[in-house]
Amino acid sequence: MYNPQLNAQGELIHLLTTEGLPRRILTQILDKAAEFVSGGELVNQKFADLAGTSVFNLFFENSTRTRTTFEIAAKRLSADVSSLNIQASSTAKGETLLDTIHNIEAMGANLFVVRHSDSGASHLIAKHVKPGVAVVNAGDGRHAHPTQAMLDMFTIRHFKGDFTNLRIAIVGDVLHSRVARSQIHALSTLGCPDIRVIAPKTLLPTGIEQLGVHVYHDMESGLKDVDVVAMLRLQNERMAGAYLPSTQEFYKVYGLTPEKLAFAKPDAIVLHPGPMNRGVEIDSAVADGDQAVILPQVTFGIAVRMAVLSIVAANQRSLL
Amino acid sequence: MYNPQLNAQGELIHLLTTEGLPRRILTQILDKAAEFVSGGELVNQKFADLAGTSVFNLFFENSTRTRTTFEIAAKRLSADVSSLNIQASSTAKGETLLDTIHNIEAMGANLFVVRHSDSGASHLIAKHVKPGVAVVNAGDGRHAHPTQAMLDMFTIRHFKGDFTNLRIAIVGDVLHSRVARSQIHALSTLGCPDIRVIAPKTLLPTGIEQLGVHVYHDMESGLKDVDVVAMLRLQNERMAGAYLPSTQEFYKVYGLTPEKLAFAKPDAIVLHPGPMNRGVEIDSAVADGDQAVILPQVTFGIAVRMAVLSIVAANQRSLL
Amino acid sequence: MYNPQLNAQGELIHLLTTEGLPRRILTQILDKAAEFVSGGELVNQKFADLAGTSVFNLFFENSTRTRTTFEIAAKRLSADVSSLNIQASSTAKGETLLDTIHNIEAMGANLFVVRHSDSGASHLIAKHVKPGVAVVNAGDGRHAHPTQAMLDMFTIRHFKGDFTNLRIAIVGDVLHSRVARSQIHALSTLGCPDIRVIAPKTLLPTGIEQLGVHVYHDMESGLKDVDVVAMLRLQNERMAGAYLPSTQEFYKVYGLTPEKLAFAKPDAIVLHPGPMNRGVEIDSAVADGDQAVILPQVTFGIAVRMAVLSIVAANQRSLL
Repeated sequence: MYNPQLNAQGELIHLLTTEGLPRRILTQILDKAAEFVSGGELVNQKFADLAGTSVFNLFFENSTRTRTTFEIAAKRLSADVSSLNIQASSTAKGETLLDTIHNIEAMGANLFVVRHSDSGASHLIAKHVKPGVAVVNAGDGRHAHPTQAMLDMFTIRHFKGDFTNLRIAIVGDVLHSRVARSQIHALSTLGCPDIRVIAPKTLLPTGIEQLGVHVYHDMESGLKDVDVVAMLRLQNERMAGAYLPSTQEFYKVYGLTPEKLAFAKPDAIVLHPGPMNRGVEIDSAVADGDQAVILPQVTFGIAVRMAVLSIVAANQRSLL
Repeated sequence: MYNPQLNAQGELIHLLTTEGLPRRILTQILDKAAEFVSGGELVNQKFADLAGTSVFNLFFENSTRTRTTFEIAAKRLSADVSSLNIQASSTAKGETLLDTIHNIEAMGANLFVVRHSDSGASHLIAKHVKPGVAVVNAGDGRHAHPTQAMLDMFTIRHFKGDFTNLRIAIVGDVLHSRVARSQIHALSTLGCPDIRVIAPKTLLPTGIEQLGVHVYHDMESGLKDVDVVAMLRLQNERMAGAYLPSTQEFYKVYGLTPEKLAFAKPDAIVLHPGPMNRGVEIDSAVADGDQAVILPQVTFGIAVRMAVLSIVAANQRSLL
Repeated sequence: MYNPQLNAQGELIHLLTTEGLPRRILTQILDKAAEFVSGGELVNQKFADLAGTSVFNLFFENSTRTRTTFEIAAKRLSADVSSLNIQASSTAKGETLLDTIHNIEAMGANLFVVRHSDSGASHLIAKHVKPGVAVVNAGDGRHAHPTQAMLDMFTIRHFKGDFTNLRIAIVGDVLHSRVARSQIHALSTLGCPDIRVIAPKTLLPTGIEQLGVHVYHDMESGLKDVDVVAMLRLQNERMAGAYLPSTQEFYKVYGLTPEKLAFAKPDAIVLHPGPMNRGVEIDSAVADGDQAVILPQVTFGIAVRMAVLSIVAANQRSLL
């Protein structure tokens, strides 16, 4: 089956989604990222993987945090980096998305990092760039956020060693979460035998079971004996209205407190993509506790983004 | 005659306007830019022309696209680049333009790239910087946009070889266009024998004929047998009101469709400074067609800006 | 007494305030800065002091000018620099200040430059970063602005040679000025025997005399025979209302005109932190006159910031 992320030799040339990527590609990303980490910290040196490469961060949707991590990753690989906040730019002047892309391509871009509120924007762009130019999805609508999922995979592998005997629960607003989707696809491909989602019915997409996950609506049974608890961020805009009665209510039932975390295995780790809403989806005692690996996630996120940028750029260069 | 752009030896020390620059300077810019292009693409390496040089992009008027091209050009020459969006800065605190300039100069700036809504702002700045500091005009009011004009000249020379037997039509809102003014001066100096402007009377400055151009109000006679069609962008703010009955009306009479383009020579090329308003001044069939050289213009724009930055910085250094 | 700015060996590891720093540290900063200046200009080369170091400018309060000077200083030392305007970022999403700091720390930050509207924000951050990570205060509330004060010290030493026989007047809105506080502490530690403040009663903090300064409410007696006049900026937001009858009234009594400057010694120098309000706190004839050293202050500001970044980074590295 045709996969726009792979070239004819099956090598990664764009990273758009974790869905449909073979296990060897996911493992290649994790292994490459491991080269940039030592003793749980980033290796304190610059690498030349992207020397002479022009990376463009195209953020059609604002995200200072994600944009910054990609900037840091690219600079650590010696790339030239330009970051464009596109609302303020040409599309506001009536230019189409593809005109904008082709223009920046003509400026000498080798690699696009794209964040967009529309699901599928990165796919559209990847379809239209010329050979030699790579696209990395930094989050598109509710669809995918593959580098976030891969840094979660890296974190899990770092602390748990292997996926094939793990029980993992994803907790919270699965309905609106591109992170959850990308995590489920990656975990499944990496061989995780028990993937669970825990959420109220209003925050679950219909048919989620078809992805091979087990659905729970309460924390006690859902967290029972899990090795990994992956919390999702509750978006401010969901906090009142049709989806949730109130944040207090959500916290009472689904907020991760030490009492609820006790249902999981004693050595379970807690992930969160940040920024955290303390007292909404997670209690401060958990966020700052021994089982939280939330700051290592950030560190590993730089390494994983370095790995992805390095791999797709190298495979694109070999096309030229 | 005194020309603030040239030093006593007649070398380029600022680029403020194409008006009054001798042909040898325009040709020097084009020849230098050609060193940065190979096979129609940017040469894929970094140059050291501006190593140790501090370039400041001072954008008093927002233009993500132009600012980005100058940033890329400066970085490809190994400069340190700072970009300041000045509305958000000191002038809002009541500081005068020249105080701002002198302050940034005192921070160690070697080169200012200036975009300003007031005609003449770059001239004013060039008059007050100290020896060794260069100013490049990135667009000032309705007055001039010399690097845009020079990238158009580069594009024309690239595809047509020579200016001395070309027929060129500039089409659209000439009245508000700094690009048109800068093009006309450059084309005239480079020896183009037939420069035409095509526009409704409301979008033509009075006395435009004195620049040596031929004026047309219809596309059929204006485009007749031309080698180059240089479209202008129709500013959103002109699209309704005193200047134009409507955008549909404008498109009907002056929008470049395949039918109108057929009046030109069969191998005529089509230029547009971007961003394009498809369906207003240009039809998508033309914008995406074989005769359009709009994306090469963008690529050559990087090379031309590299050339200008390199030349003025070198000539300023020799003053010290 | 415990000083969070110094390590156990008494070396500078954070710069939060000039208050309580020993004279040898202030002198170390000035001497280091002098290495980056030659003939009153910045030495025109790059230094490797921060090669491989990641500097983060965290501006919770907008200040293009100060942020730019820190960016330039860091780049001249070969650092990788990221600038974050934090209003637009995570804190708006409900994340706490310390979560934001720990996140950026986890991205591999070695040095934070912090501007914040809350007094004490830099202290709070310095208390929570991990060993090896330095914090430099770029202005916190009304509390301190130590690099501004140190560039003033550098300027005074540059033009006057020594502090121990100088008479110095600080003029204007002392009440709201973090600059004035930081200047007074530094001047006092460096041995200046006569520090004066000149201001209306409404713009003086109560108890200011306890800092060892002499208070004046009129320019004639306050400026009498001083060697240095350090003007403060009058904030726009103070210009009308409870603090001042009107800017005209302020200018009449406290605005530095040539006539008032004549009360000082004939070779007195005039400082201003910029941006200036000409015709409010300073007359153009003084601002542009021979006694003003306002542009050298800017140049020395880059050198002083380079010195501070270099010193704290080196001392933090030695902790690892």
